[in-house]
Amino acid sequence: MVKSIWATWRAAAVALGLLCILFTSANAQTAPDPLPSWNDGPAKQAIVKLVTVTTTAGNPDFVLPGARFATFDQDGTLWVEQPMYAQLEFAFARVAALAPEHRAWKTTEPFKSVLAGDRAAMAKFTMKDLEQILFVTHTGMSTAQFTAIVKDWMATARNPRWHCPYTDLVYQPMLEVMRYLRANGYRTYIVTGGGQAFVRTYAEQTYGVPPEQVIGSAIETQFTENAAGDAILMRPPKLLLNNDFSGKAEDIYLFTGGPPQAAFGNAAGDRQMLEYTAAGGKGALMMLVQHDDATREYAYGPAEGLPASKIGTFPQSLYDEAKAKGWTVISMKHDWKRIFPFDR
Amino acid sequence: MVKSIWATWRAAAVALGLLCILFTSANAQTAPDPLPSWNDGPAKQAIVKLVTVTTTAGNPDFVLPGARFATFDQDGTLWVEQPMYAQLEFAFARVAALAPEHRAWKTTEPFKSVLAGDRAAMAKFTMKDLEQILFVTHTGMSTAQFTAIVKDWMATARNPRWHCPYTDLVYQPMLEVMRYLRANGYRTYIVTGGGQAFVRTYAEQTYGVPPEQVIGSAIETQFTENAAGDAILMRPPKLLLNNDFSGKAEDIYLFTGGPPQAAFGNAAGDRQMLEYTAAGGKGALMMLVQHDDATREYAYGPAEGLPASKIGTFPQSLYDEAKAKGWTVISMKHDWKRIFPFDR
Repeated sequence: MVKSIWATWRAAAVALGLLCILFTSANAQTAPDPLPSWNDGPAKQAIVKLVTVTTTAGNPDFVLPGARFATFDQDGTLWVEQPMYAQLEFAFARVAALAPEHRAWKTTEPFKSVLAGDRAAMAKFTMKDLEQILFVTHTGMSTAQFTAIVKDWMATARNPRWHCPYTDLVYQPMLEVMRYLRANGYRTYIVTGGGQAFVRTYAEQTYGVPPEQVIGSAIETQFTENAAGDAILMRPPKLLLNNDFSGKAEDIYLFTGGPPQAAFGNAAGDRQMLEYTAAGGKGALMMLVQHDDATREYAYGPAEGLPASKIGTFPQSLYDEAKAKGWTVISMKHDWKRIFPFDR
Repeated sequence: MVKSIWATWRAAAVALGLLCILFTSANAQTAPDPLPSWNDGPAKQAIVKLVTVTTTAGNPDFVLPGARFATFDQDGTLWVEQPMYAQLEFAFARVAALAPEHRAWKTTEPFKSVLAGDRAAMAKFTMKDLEQILFVTHTGMSTAQFTAIVKDWMATARNPRWHCPYTDLVYQPMLEVMRYLRANGYRTYIVTGGGQAFVRTYAEQTYGVPPEQVIGSAIETQFTENAAGDAILMRPPKLLLNNDFSGKAEDIYLFTGGPPQAAFGNAAGDRQMLEYTAAGGKGALMMLVQHDDATREYAYGPAEGLPASKIGTFPQSLYDEAKAKGWTVISMKHDWKRIFPFDR
């Protein structure tokens, strides 16, 4: 009996071993390309190289799984930012919704132009105009109320060019990078100049990024109690984090304790994030998305001095810095086989 | 041949199935108690119940694994805070180390008392005294320099009563709670009034908590370049987050996007964190550690009005609120079989 069990066990072990060998070699032959929407070239190769060196034990750039993370700008890097940021469209829609309670807005700028639907005037808004609009539309309610307002708007808002929800206009190649990194032990953070609370409402469903991995501009919150005596957080009109330019590097440190191994951006506001990433170690990967495909998306960089409402500027100086420092510029036109998940 | 392989495969499958059944039942019979340092009682039962209801599919309080997290105050909840917070001891040691560069300190309070080693005077420092000491000892260097200074001090500093490193004085029962929660899909955050950058230097090794799950009081950082042109972050003397009282609830929201399913505290500064947790849902667990064991540790609560340097106060009003709201008070004396990992 003992011998019989032993024989069965040995047979089982041999069979299992054979199966493992068969499976492994079959797998090696048919392993799907983790980045199928990328054309082969320096950009795709740089991403694969990052994963190889940081996940191979013994490699000088090896990083322990728990310490692996990458940071992604959102507007213009993960999704379309033209003709206007989605969050600005949201703010303008809120101005219209709130107008009945603010009769003076009809005759007061910048609200007057918004209510008149004067797109030419809105495209020329200064940062101060935009701040004024953001404060009246993003503060004065509880955190739960704000989340509900954003979700309601997102459910029905449509991009004017593609006539689809904004969350459909994510870049398929970047979704693949995020999934590829996560499959290799990376956390994938969104680090956006946009509002943290705004982006958190759809980030998990859209990008697979949980709320605690969304770093964004943030107003203070204020602990208080509602009428039922339950703790709630209110949103007073006071900026806590301006998560753009230097703020991106500073807030990555605040939220994570150090630089990422890879950072992806597309604009002037991402410069310091990439410089901070570069300072983290020689294996680090810095990438910039260049919008150079007017047919499939837009072409607007490198260029200097776009207005505040179109601050997705990829300045020539950033392009030059990238080239000088060996960062990788992604050409949407040449590196990406398709742009959107709905492209075939 | 085909039949032979099939027979071998079937034998292997049967053998594997038997092994699985044997292993599972053996495991069920001998599953170790996840909380061996806890006496059976309401506190231990409340922790087990939290895990049961939040991890059982179909339970009304079920939470998806990625959304499960708990928050832990540090001083007095995870480790000893008497006779003085470890971080204050660090600050006092830094005053002594920096004194040669600041000759006026010898005759100026609060530095004079620190340099004289006047423990009675130091125990009476006001919050303003302490802030002054914290700023001169915690700012003015890069983030990397500060981390190195803290690690150097931690390596040699000793608690005056137990004559061991501060990181040895963690509460074994709380380490077990953290491990138990993590084994059940929870992230375990430290939410401390202490300095985020200070606690991050040892949190992973001491508690198994990675840097991105340490929320603490934080000064601003300032992006700049060093002489070699590399990006670095400096620490200017400007407070960004005062992570105590209301700040704990506000910063949990800032870092995670919502309330945790469980929160553990021991002092007045944890009240709002527990209230915010309670507002998250009826399955939530709120716990307070009561220091009532003068023999094995300390007995100092509930009590009102301890000085700022001993603000680990468990006020009577918080005790009353806990009892009225059905929060769980942990008695160190009665609920904990042992206090420290080195206890037998």
